[in-house]
Amino acid sequence: MKLYDNAHAPNPRRVRMVLAEKAIEYEREILDLGAGDNLTTDFCSKNPTAKVPVLELDDGLCLAETGAICRFLDESYPQPLLYGSGVKERAKIDMWDHRMELGLMIYAAMGFQHTSGFFKDRMTPVEAWGLECIKNFHATLPVLEAQLSNNEWIAGDEFTIADITAVCAIDFARVLKVRVGDEYPNIQRWHAAMKQRPSYAA
Amino acid sequence: MKLYDNAHAPNPRRVRMVLAEKAIEYEREILDLGAGDNLTTDFCSKNPTAKVPVLELDDGLCLAETGAICRFLDESYPQPLLYGSGVKERAKIDMWDHRMELGLMIYAAMGFQHTSGFFKDRMTPVEAWGLECIKNFHATLPVLEAQLSNNEWIAGDEFTIADITAVCAIDFARVLKVRVGDEYPNIQRWHAAMKQRPSYAA
Repeated sequence: MKLYDNAHAPNPRRVRMVLAEKAIEYEREILDLGAGDNLTTDFCSKNPTAKVPVLELDDGLCLAETGAICRFLDESYPQPLLYGSGVKERAKIDMWDHRMELGLMIYAAMGFQHTSGFFKDRMTPVEAWGLECIKNFHATLPVLEAQLSNNEWIAGDEFTIADITAVCAIDFARVLKVRVGDEYPNIQRWHAAMKQRPSYAA
Repeated sequence: MKLYDNAHAPNPRRVRMVLAEKAIEYEREILDLGAGDNLTTDFCSKNPTAKVPVLELDDGLCLAETGAICRFLDESYPQPLLYGSGVKERAKIDMWDHRMELGLMIYAAMGFQHTSGFFKDRMTPVEAWGLECIKNFHATLPVLEAQLSNNEWIAGDEFTIADITAVCAIDFARVLKVRVGDEYPNIQRWHAAMKQRPSYAA
């Protein structure tokens, strides 16, 4: 399989971390998003929304959308299992993964897009919205802190996809000068544990 | 089970449509979002992000995040199956569900929140961003039209969760004066088929 990738974007890192956790070998093609490598006709035939990551399988099937790719990898290579077992456990993990996606990842990504001007040749940045995104990102941290004050990992006792989504969002938010301060000791404890995993370097 | 619901919001309708497709009986508590019923301490103990829908199970477990609730219902009541069978088929459905969520639903919801002023007592509306959301919603329609020109339903030959997510987003977008015009004959054909399903009235 082949991953259409970018080293700086947060969503491709989620896929790389899943691949690393499962020790899956893959080919990697790095796209220069600033140069518009993702806007070519060839790439858009693989993903009509022109976004990375895309995972191209050996039979030619191209999977896009980070959440769908990560779940596909978990169902195809279940060791270690990142989306849980048992219907209720899976639902709790899924709920926390959505919270981290909608409450941290999307705000980090939009905060960057709307304040940096990086994609201003292909979108209309609205700086006031970008600043709101950074506020909204901060507003999710107390929810995460409360959860981690009662749980070792974000969805409970086990490391899951929700931890990967959250760490990729939090690390990416450094570009927005967002830091997780001492008011969040449990997030800091969790982040230190994340750094210990070999997949963190992915 | 009990659904914390709102009749006008698009995400609770996704859950109601899944419940209707599967003919699941449930109790319903309707929250007045304008009055802040979702901001009470009691409701926030069920969902710390203060959003509807929430599905409260008979054992007290409260599930939030629409995508997680719908998948939980599909795993618990598999007839009819809305997330597919087989790893690749499931991945394609998941990919299209994410595209409809990220390319239509989120833009419809944010377009409303940022142009209507409905929640201005609890957020900072950025009208310029709301107008961009409406443009971004329109920009996804050609992607959907192309897919539906080759497929009966959004993810392929079968009706799936992606159809539910899309129709709830498209119908909600009427409040933004967004109409799917004659330039999208396949979306119109699909929408007419959606209206024929009893679950459409949910």
